[in-house]
Amino acid sequence: MTAEEFRRHGHALVDWVADYWDRVETLPVLSQVSPGEIRRRLPAHPPSLGEDFESVLSDLDSIILPGITHWQSPNFFAYFPANTSGPSVLGELVSAGLGVQGMLWSTSPACTELETHVLDWMAEMTGLPETFRSTGAGGGVLQDSASSAALCAMVAAREKATGGASNRSGCDGRLTAYASTEAHSSLHKAAGIAGIGRENHRLLPTDGALRLDPCALREAVRADRAAGLRPFFVTATVGTTSTNAMDPLAAVGEVCRSEGLWLHVDGAMSGSAAICPEFRIHLQGIEYADSYCFNPHKWLFTNFDCDCFFVADRAALIHSLSILPEYLRNQATESGAVLDYRDWQVPLGRRFRALKLWFVIRHYGVEGLRTLVRHHVDLARRFAGWVRESEDFELVVEPPLNLVCFRHRGGDEANQAILDRVNGEGSLYLTHTKVGGALTLRLSVGQTRTELRHVESAWAAIREAGRAIRRPRG
Amino acid sequence: MTAEEFRRHGHALVDWVADYWDRVETLPVLSQVSPGEIRRRLPAHPPSLGEDFESVLSDLDSIILPGITHWQSPNFFAYFPANTSGPSVLGELVSAGLGVQGMLWSTSPACTELETHVLDWMAEMTGLPETFRSTGAGGGVLQDSASSAALCAMVAAREKATGGASNRSGCDGRLTAYASTEAHSSLHKAAGIAGIGRENHRLLPTDGALRLDPCALREAVRADRAAGLRPFFVTATVGTTSTNAMDPLAAVGEVCRSEGLWLHVDGAMSGSAAICPEFRIHLQGIEYADSYCFNPHKWLFTNFDCDCFFVADRAALIHSLSILPEYLRNQATESGAVLDYRDWQVPLGRRFRALKLWFVIRHYGVEGLRTLVRHHVDLARRFAGWVRESEDFELVVEPPLNLVCFRHRGGDEANQAILDRVNGEGSLYLTHTKVGGALTLRLSVGQTRTELRHVESAWAAIREAGRAIRRPRG
Repeated sequence: MTAEEFRRHGHALVDWVADYWDRVETLPVLSQVSPGEIRRRLPAHPPSLGEDFESVLSDLDSIILPGITHWQSPNFFAYFPANTSGPSVLGELVSAGLGVQGMLWSTSPACTELETHVLDWMAEMTGLPETFRSTGAGGGVLQDSASSAALCAMVAAREKATGGASNRSGCDGRLTAYASTEAHSSLHKAAGIAGIGRENHRLLPTDGALRLDPCALREAVRADRAAGLRPFFVTATVGTTSTNAMDPLAAVGEVCRSEGLWLHVDGAMSGSAAICPEFRIHLQGIEYADSYCFNPHKWLFTNFDCDCFFVADRAALIHSLSILPEYLRNQATESGAVLDYRDWQVPLGRRFRALKLWFVIRHYGVEGLRTLVRHHVDLARRFAGWVRESEDFELVVEPPLNLVCFRHRGGDEANQAILDRVNGEGSLYLTHTKVGGALTLRLSVGQTRTELRHVESAWAAIREAGRAIRRPRG
Repeated sequence: MTAEEFRRHGHALVDWVADYWDRVETLPVLSQVSPGEIRRRLPAHPPSLGEDFESVLSDLDSIILPGITHWQSPNFFAYFPANTSGPSVLGELVSAGLGVQGMLWSTSPACTELETHVLDWMAEMTGLPETFRSTGAGGGVLQDSASSAALCAMVAAREKATGGASNRSGCDGRLTAYASTEAHSSLHKAAGIAGIGRENHRLLPTDGALRLDPCALREAVRADRAAGLRPFFVTATVGTTSTNAMDPLAAVGEVCRSEGLWLHVDGAMSGSAAICPEFRIHLQGIEYADSYCFNPHKWLFTNFDCDCFFVADRAALIHSLSILPEYLRNQATESGAVLDYRDWQVPLGRRFRALKLWFVIRHYGVEGLRTLVRHHVDLARRFAGWVRESEDFELVVEPPLNLVCFRHRGGDEANQAILDRVNGEGSLYLTHTKVGGALTLRLSVGQTRTELRHVESAWAAIREAGRAIRRPRG
């Protein structure tokens, strides 16, 4: 592709993205294709000779787009937000164009230093303790996801607990970790991957507000110790995926401190809210944490992947993940004056992800980001108010931020019928969870273009679906 | 950022990338900044109010660019290539703009189906056995890196060997894995992460050509069994990072088959060469493999991250990594008619990476990609010829593809002096390895814009540096 062609197609695709964002609210949010339908429209074999780029772009519209569930639609209220923004996408474009490999400081110093710098900014922006900044013994790094951050935290904690023995000679089946039944499945998955064993990742009961119960934690730790096991790791969640429950960090942190356990705090979605001082109440006790993560790729206008992962003791992380083959040796590394982020993550390679976050923070400014996050919380609270006042629906929990969990009073069948109807129509997309065994609808507000009118329309569609169902017998 | 602003800045940044590629060969390849120099030019605190995007772009040139080591320079001969291309960068742009989360089939069917399809194309393009295609029991998936692919392979193998026991109740320190001393450090790292233990990842001696010795493998496996241990996993490398040595897949595969071990083949860089039928000789025996990976983000014109990971038995992989919390349940998953790629990797989230690979394959066509790869191999062979004919330099190994390992006859000090001089000048960038304890220079040819004149200039600069050094005493 010549430079001239790249400019021409590039301009056209920038416009394509701008047009897509303009029209995305008119598209059915949830893709309505059947399994295999997209593949059947693609040629069975790769082209032998290169094709016109115009035909690729034509297929993008005709083949790919019908198979897209539109996460950028203002009517997307499913799962969690994955919002993005102009400056973020442009940062990704520059990163791809530069095409640097940031595995070592020396393989592109700006890639490492901008990342350290922006993570320090982010610690300041969200009111994190000094321990998480690179100016002390800790620091931040970008991971692809909270799942990967959780795995790295668990491995670092494992090595700290065993003095490096499990990294050297393998796990022995005696290490135990803890989280609530409401914690994200990635913690359970990490325990399997890291050789701890999923059964040794204890899922503890919650209190009435679906929060990890510190007393249950202390009892479980003591019981495991009495049985000859080695408790080492606790996850507390700031905003569970299912219902946005907030674990009591300070009380959990006290248990961790007295029992000598690594505390990992998972703030995947809700951590972004801490850029607003009034929402930092949910992070009270974060100073007990050994590691913490949250995802600007969920709710801070930065496209996936972009997880901010902070540790209070970077040496523990690095010791557990460091490798230094001859072909990666270099003077900067050996001087000890630089960070090499390949030792802070599972992969060796890494792209220049800090650029997009830097673009986002500079474009919006801290106040601009606060305004956007507050707007989403306000919309969710309005929606919760409508539910609270309705006769047919009820709130399942009080929404602390931008996620509303609610249900029709008609029971599981009614709620399933509502879900199927609104998602099938394509005018919005909701997902579900179960709370106390009962099917519960989730409305997650956080897309970049979501305004009051979209939430109003969603509520109208949900109420209409509620009126249309017959109450189940019995 | 309004749609109008996004278009304007987007067009400007597309042009910025095109201009960067045009002028990159005039920039010093290896960044010459000192540790901390980039950070010192950045404001200590994030901006409270949003800034003009023009000022961000101005800082991109004045602050960031001096800290970039230019992996896209045609004079970049260090490490391994990380080549990219116009269609790839445009695919990344569209992926960022769509902003879909491809964790499940249902969260964007096209994201999953295009990925499966393109991986099947890639299996066909590189002559892989049918077992790695999704039409049978296997299939492919995109990972961020060969490191992550290795970890997933090791975890899947671990679960297959223990009947799921290590995932459930943790590792027991008795599993053992094998690779040569020349295998990539990520395998060793994965053994640590997965609770196998780095000491239980045996690094076996190589033959005279730095290839894994199948006899040594068989002996090590039997010795471990005799000691009550449980051998389960072997890595064979197609093109080691250090010298591009090719492990004998068929002979290693025979040992794996007779001993009941999972064979993982790591073709990170050199696997891309298999799009050319004449280079598939290095993959002879790949039909023994349980898993295989190679990185289009190294040598197939697709920007990082893009690792193609294939398994012969996808059920083994999925069983080891699957999680299914209530909030991710959906009809498509439960129908069994779809693939959910979150169960093929460590993270839950995933972006639409197949788009860029699809753009690349369609733009170049298979023949176009072959021409580019052959060109790189031809350039490396010419360079090797010049080394072979020179009096001052010698080849350390015969280069099978695009990596030339060579050295000055003056010993380690001479070679270090040459390395320091050419890298300090900025006109090219070389890295090193050690072979038989001796410092060895590596010239890796694979950047998108590298032409004969760049390789000729590199050779001239290296010879000049060789002439400039004094031979060390003794």
